[in-house]
Amino acid sequence: MTETTTVRPLRADAVPGWDLEADVVIAGYGVAGAAAAIEAARAGAEVLVLERTGGWGGAAAQSGGFIYLGGGTALQKALGFEDTPENMERFLLAALGPGVDEAKIHDYCQGSVEHFDWLVAQGVPFKEEFWGEPGWEPPHDEGLMYSGGENAAPFHTIATPAPRGHLPQMQNKRTGEKGGGYMLMKPLTDTAEKLGVRAEYDIRIQRLIVDDTDRVVGVVAKRYGRPLHIRARRGVVLATGSFAYQRQMIENYAPRLIGRPAAAIEEHDGIGIRIAQALGADLAHMDATEVAFFGDPQMLARGILVNGRGQRFIAEDTYPGRIGQATLIQQDNEAFLILDEAALEQALTTETSTPFFRQPPTWAAESVEELEGEMGLPAGALQATVDVYNRHAERGQDPLLGKKTEWVRPIGTPVAGFDMRGFTAGFTLGGLRTDLDARVLHVSGEPIAGLYAAGRCTSGICAGGYASGSSLGDGSFYGRRAGRAAAGN
Amino acid sequence: MTETTTVRPLRADAVPGWDLEADVVIAGYGVAGAAAAIEAARAGAEVLVLERTGGWGGAAAQSGGFIYLGGGTALQKALGFEDTPENMERFLLAALGPGVDEAKIHDYCQGSVEHFDWLVAQGVPFKEEFWGEPGWEPPHDEGLMYSGGENAAPFHTIATPAPRGHLPQMQNKRTGEKGGGYMLMKPLTDTAEKLGVRAEYDIRIQRLIVDDTDRVVGVVAKRYGRPLHIRARRGVVLATGSFAYQRQMIENYAPRLIGRPAAAIEEHDGIGIRIAQALGADLAHMDATEVAFFGDPQMLARGILVNGRGQRFIAEDTYPGRIGQATLIQQDNEAFLILDEAALEQALTTETSTPFFRQPPTWAAESVEELEGEMGLPAGALQATVDVYNRHAERGQDPLLGKKTEWVRPIGTPVAGFDMRGFTAGFTLGGLRTDLDARVLHVSGEPIAGLYAAGRCTSGICAGGYASGSSLGDGSFYGRRAGRAAAGN
Repeated sequence: MTETTTVRPLRADAVPGWDLEADVVIAGYGVAGAAAAIEAARAGAEVLVLERTGGWGGAAAQSGGFIYLGGGTALQKALGFEDTPENMERFLLAALGPGVDEAKIHDYCQGSVEHFDWLVAQGVPFKEEFWGEPGWEPPHDEGLMYSGGENAAPFHTIATPAPRGHLPQMQNKRTGEKGGGYMLMKPLTDTAEKLGVRAEYDIRIQRLIVDDTDRVVGVVAKRYGRPLHIRARRGVVLATGSFAYQRQMIENYAPRLIGRPAAAIEEHDGIGIRIAQALGADLAHMDATEVAFFGDPQMLARGILVNGRGQRFIAEDTYPGRIGQATLIQQDNEAFLILDEAALEQALTTETSTPFFRQPPTWAAESVEELEGEMGLPAGALQATVDVYNRHAERGQDPLLGKKTEWVRPIGTPVAGFDMRGFTAGFTLGGLRTDLDARVLHVSGEPIAGLYAAGRCTSGICAGGYASGSSLGDGSFYGRRAGRAAAGN
Repeated sequence: MTETTTVRPLRADAVPGWDLEADVVIAGYGVAGAAAAIEAARAGAEVLVLERTGGWGGAAAQSGGFIYLGGGTALQKALGFEDTPENMERFLLAALGPGVDEAKIHDYCQGSVEHFDWLVAQGVPFKEEFWGEPGWEPPHDEGLMYSGGENAAPFHTIATPAPRGHLPQMQNKRTGEKGGGYMLMKPLTDTAEKLGVRAEYDIRIQRLIVDDTDRVVGVVAKRYGRPLHIRARRGVVLATGSFAYQRQMIENYAPRLIGRPAAAIEEHDGIGIRIAQALGADLAHMDATEVAFFGDPQMLARGILVNGRGQRFIAEDTYPGRIGQATLIQQDNEAFLILDEAALEQALTTETSTPFFRQPPTWAAESVEELEGEMGLPAGALQATVDVYNRHAERGQDPLLGKKTEWVRPIGTPVAGFDMRGFTAGFTLGGLRTDLDARVLHVSGEPIAGLYAAGRCTSGICAGGYASGSSLGDGSFYGRRAGRAAAGN
């Protein structure tokens, strides 16, 4: 194995010479890297960002732009929603577990209002408009939406529902040219540039450089095949994203995602995780995954979703990311949507539908009995499910799963079945274990001197669960911490 | 942090002096350690085993003793079962995934017959008697049993069913004095002793010692508060067991097991994993867990098991460890057993029942409708489940889940419900990533010089799934490899 492909740390005394240097060196110019750069620069550090692609943005710029914030942000207040850090914490503890980092969640909730204000101060625009329909994203440039099932069973009985998906105001929604992710990243990188942050592109980091006390003092990288030795006088911040595209790591840690990466970019090869592991960095929740479900939430809410045995398993009006996780992990990636003609018509004609998730029915039948036969389900299985659902739906109730009354209606005929097996994909949530100052923790428990990390190369506020916006949320929140902590060294 | 509590490696030039030394130093005297000791000694190495407790045995000696072997072992043949390595491999690939180490499973299946013969040659006794009833263990000293759901849905259609749970012939089953695990460990440690293997007890390993090329050359340990520096001239073998009792690791990697460790021993604190991580060792499948289900398999097979929504979710006649995993991971640890009076009577009076798993019914009723009301299930939910089950059971069929005809009978009245929520516990299956020579792999992909590992501190043949006997199986199999490889260095 040649020196240039290993991830083992290089000793500083073996460095032939420094090609670049700065006080704080940040790997990755997505949301965590940009937030780190801004705060490090404001703390008086000379900052250098190393980005692997030809420009800033990372996965963040290509995303919808959701940032999960609450506790009573200015936007929540302006739109009439009450929330407190404690209420937000109750929800996140219930929705993002089991096994969440409780200290991190508490910290994140307590700092959430300030973090929103900080984003606005950097120039990130949020339109004071709420979107209340089920969906992955608002159809226009609305700034606030439910994004984690806060207003659906079982969470609406655990914490007072409040929307916390904060969306930068997008432009040209139709063309996608300046989506929410772009409108988040553009002001952040503009701010960084104004603060004198230097960015170098087309640079791939390969290994860390440590001094003889094992303190991180730089990185070895490569540009156009040429090795670079980059010195970090105060600290290195890893902000290199998930490992969704690193096949070996996916097989070893999150095998249900094999062949189905999404909402990630090909650069997400886990390099930041691996070079820190080579120093003894600890990991957490490597199996945790965000899982998107490629169904139209307007159709889902109006129908019943059943597994491979014809049984319902989740309130169909919840956050579709929860449906994705439940389908992939708990139902062996098997799901079928059952919808009667009237509900289908209604879903397709409502203005709030998500056209690109529409598909024609796989099966259509004059009765549920006929449908279950066509679907190859055991005789009576789907009929029993529909009978129980309809029995309570007559009174607008769903005691089995708690779908909200507004979406509960008996299923009539004709009736259609949609084959949604394998309609899932996602990205990884596990990574380096960090403390509240974004310091990377050694397996001994203490921080690794000179090394910081944020974003999806770390384990953030999510363990098993997910809410849209928690990745850009904890990435930017702990990115800031990383920048400040690195600059302070 | 004091030197004695860190897990960071110690540099050999900082060692004050060697207190003990050997060619091969093995940490842990369970099944992996014993197998490693024997093979290392046979390969001509001077071997020293460091055991944390006051005697040999580890979790293995306290276990039932199942060793998962097949492909046509002498015992399988003697009892008339046909099996091939390829057939065994088909089953394991399907049952132990997703994400299994395919090379390791292939290797394990190819070497399985030889490994059985080796165990016999070391003096491990196996009685030529088969036990064919559902259960966790045979009631007497039978030597062979199904232990992974090989003869149940869905696996019996994927590979030709063959029993592969090989059990050392126990003595005094009633008192548990010389159970299968003891009868496995006693001959192995006797053999090791005869070969001149030295064992030192009450020694806790704390960190690895590396030379200036990062090669592992020893361990730092502690006995009665006193530090010991132990030199390994050829290699160190880690055989220290799982992390089921390390709270922080359980929270970080396998949070569903919080508060429910089982079939592990308190010494299973992940130390072997952590000291290797500190050297940059790679990990795999840290979320994977064996999960026992504390129900009587004879009762389970005769009833239907439903989740918190009153829905069936697994063939009730399969390996109870699969029921445990499905309940804990896919059904949020909620399960209820439904059994009519006749079936309950039959289960309790059969000679093959497991008395210590019996419990009185939580609810009893004259009808399913009444029962579901008492259980607090939505009206119609359990009735629908029973109706569909009975409809097909009239013809001895279970098209929903494939329970075998011999166990399928319509559920009548009176009928009882058993509350089995939380009836699960288990141990961890994830750990160090190793190659087929039991060399511990660095996150770079290459082996860490001088470091070997086997048993439950490694990720073995199991990823997500489990079969009883796979831990003692891959622990002894790769323990042997570790001993040979370490001695050869």
